[in-house]
Amino acid sequence: MLALSPDDQAFLQRARVARLATASADARPHVVPVCFVFDGACLYSAIDAKPKRGDPRRLRRLQNLRENPRATLLVDQYEEEWAQLRYLLITARADILTGGSDRDRALALLRDKYPQYRRMPGLDDALVIRLVPEHITAWRATPSG
Amino acid sequence: MLALSPDDQAFLQRARVARLATASADARPHVVPVCFVFDGACLYSAIDAKPKRGDPRRLRRLQNLRENPRATLLVDQYEEEWAQLRYLLITARADILTGGSDRDRALALLRDKYPQYRRMPGLDDALVIRLVPEHITAWRATPSG
Repeated sequence: MLALSPDDQAFLQRARVARLATASADARPHVVPVCFVFDGACLYSAIDAKPKRGDPRRLRRLQNLRENPRATLLVDQYEEEWAQLRYLLITARADILTGGSDRDRALALLRDKYPQYRRMPGLDDALVIRLVPEHITAWRATPSG
Repeated sequence: MLALSPDDQAFLQRARVARLATASADARPHVVPVCFVFDGACLYSAIDAKPKRGDPRRLRRLQNLRENPRATLLVDQYEEEWAQLRYLLITARADILTGGSDRDRALALLRDKYPQYRRMPGLDDALVIRLVPEHITAWRATPSG
């Protein structure tokens, strides 16, 4: 499980965006910005339908995860004062949830965190990526004391 | 070469941070925040020595690129107004520059863009990752008109 300091846990909870890296089976890396929630154990990100982009099930991140479930989620803070730089790097196994109570709970948590989701049509049908953390790296330019 | 609209080119030039995704030869994805410059053709990011982290040459991103030169750089903008979301996703081949005029020029460009680098000891000895773009995806939540 995640061994997170209270401060890192708060950092993770309040982050509004993260970057999700995946790789195809033949090791082509990919990375996209994602909204996410952390329930204290796993992290969840929804695939919200964007009709003009075509079938969301064909998104690269999903194609990659279907052939290679290893994912890395980066939650970082950029500041011009570089002494304030920090990030959490979470290495995880990913599942794609197409239904069920865990997916429904994740969508409810996403609506709680992001008011934007509350008015999004079709979110009830969204796929959810569940990330089960295997390892976490907490980095700070200036070690906290 | 990169086919970038003037607006996307400006977005890329002014971005202060990007996220660099790499993968090991056995397809384990990795992603880190990076400062970077774009010279109109390639993108460059320095490996600045952080002594407390040990030998920078052993960083995961470098280990990955030595065994698999494929990289993806994400430059995105997060806004609470989701209609304003946008990103550029640059698929590239990476080289690690250990010296030479191209590395020196990249370090000069980095010092121009980031005042923080001007006062960083040892930057003259830094390795530089050069990304040669192969493909670019420009995404906007709201198509520009």
